[in-house]
Amino acid sequence: MANACLIIIGNEILSGRTQDKNLAWLAAQLGEIGIRLMEVRVIPDIGETIVETLNACRARFDYVFTTGGIGPTHDDITTEFVAKAFQKPVIRHPEAERRLLAHYTPDMVNEARLKMADVPEGAELIDNPVSAAPGYRIGNVFVMAGVPRIMQAMFDNIKGQLRGGAKILSRSVAAYITEGTIAAELTAIQGSFPDVEIGSYPFMQSGRLGTSLVARGTDAARLSLCYDAIGAMLERFNAEIAAPPTA
Amino acid sequence: MANACLIIIGNEILSGRTQDKNLAWLAAQLGEIGIRLMEVRVIPDIGETIVETLNACRARFDYVFTTGGIGPTHDDITTEFVAKAFQKPVIRHPEAERRLLAHYTPDMVNEARLKMADVPEGAELIDNPVSAAPGYRIGNVFVMAGVPRIMQAMFDNIKGQLRGGAKILSRSVAAYITEGTIAAELTAIQGSFPDVEIGSYPFMQSGRLGTSLVARGTDAARLSLCYDAIGAMLERFNAEIAAPPTA
Repeated sequence: MANACLIIIGNEILSGRTQDKNLAWLAAQLGEIGIRLMEVRVIPDIGETIVETLNACRARFDYVFTTGGIGPTHDDITTEFVAKAFQKPVIRHPEAERRLLAHYTPDMVNEARLKMADVPEGAELIDNPVSAAPGYRIGNVFVMAGVPRIMQAMFDNIKGQLRGGAKILSRSVAAYITEGTIAAELTAIQGSFPDVEIGSYPFMQSGRLGTSLVARGTDAARLSLCYDAIGAMLERFNAEIAAPPTA
Repeated sequence: MANACLIIIGNEILSGRTQDKNLAWLAAQLGEIGIRLMEVRVIPDIGETIVETLNACRARFDYVFTTGGIGPTHDDITTEFVAKAFQKPVIRHPEAERRLLAHYTPDMVNEARLKMADVPEGAELIDNPVSAAPGYRIGNVFVMAGVPRIMQAMFDNIKGQLRGGAKILSRSVAAYITEGTIAAELTAIQGSFPDVEIGSYPFMQSGRLGTSLVARGTDAARLSLCYDAIGAMLERFNAEIAAPPTA
């Protein structure tokens, strides 16, 4: 199965000011096409950190996605350092420039906005149907905007290029029973289903403790058997089934 | 200024099933005591990844916080591999065991629950006032629960041990003006205030594009001057001030 890494570039996430929304969305999308998100790194707008992180991750994972830092302001430094990581010069991409010139009225055109047409040499554009300024692919790295709506539109445009595998399926059940009560039986079920990944997550809802059990895998029949085994186990404990927890 | 790294351990975050809430909360708390969160890594419940990530991060940052993977079930493997990273054996901590035995009724005590008293040799406990099972500190690494309410209670108990610096202050203003319009002037302001970090973040609200400008620093007087310079710049552009964007 192909794997992927997401690099979230931006001081606003690390300061706690902005809650990232790209991770959960991208993870779910990748799962749909059978690509497993194996790691996420959130890093600041610091050039050498971008270079080092990108080079470590692109050597290690099949696909690397970055979000953030490709706008027109002084803190948008992603492209300069993606180029450094690939040891390529930054060039102004003629087609990207054309798109920006078509998008803006003449009085809006300035050097800051045209900077958004700059890409590392050899990069292929990723269309941005929301605000024109494109993302790009270079090697196995996909450089996308940080604004969720734009990032999502960009991803929709590249999804077809990604070679995934079988869709990652999941079945889950929540019950008012604590993890410690079922841990031993759950370990036994996991032992019988090495091809299914069982996760156990405690929650508190309306003042009551419970556990969400999530089974994930690519084989629907095996997943179903595993889910049934979890259900039978919960019945043996007379566990009350709960609505899926909201948080 | 002291710095920190957060390692979020858990397949549920990487699958997109659960939206992480610990990053933003911890980042804000650290900022309050003058510790800068420099990097976050989200990694799966895979032993060698935990060892490698922890060793890379603890060598590099003043403080490392981990969340997740210290419960009673089969997928809670954090302690085993934190111990491996430090080349220490896992021991059952007598005080942690005493707390668990006091917390549970006798019929609830089982090996899975007592596993939560296991720590790497040499670790110091972090109190858990919510559900008894403690976190722990070993070296510069603080191992905490993943459930936000428990993580937050644990952090409150260790905050006093952390040596930070001057509180990181911030001032922000949002306006209905696009980044590209103000980029050049903003670069000039950033040039005049190298000791203040200015972030620029586009937003869309009620169908209108705008930009949030955030100034962060530790010197209140300099921050105020920088904020005033940003305000004066927005006035020169006749930019309409917006309510702070909600997303």
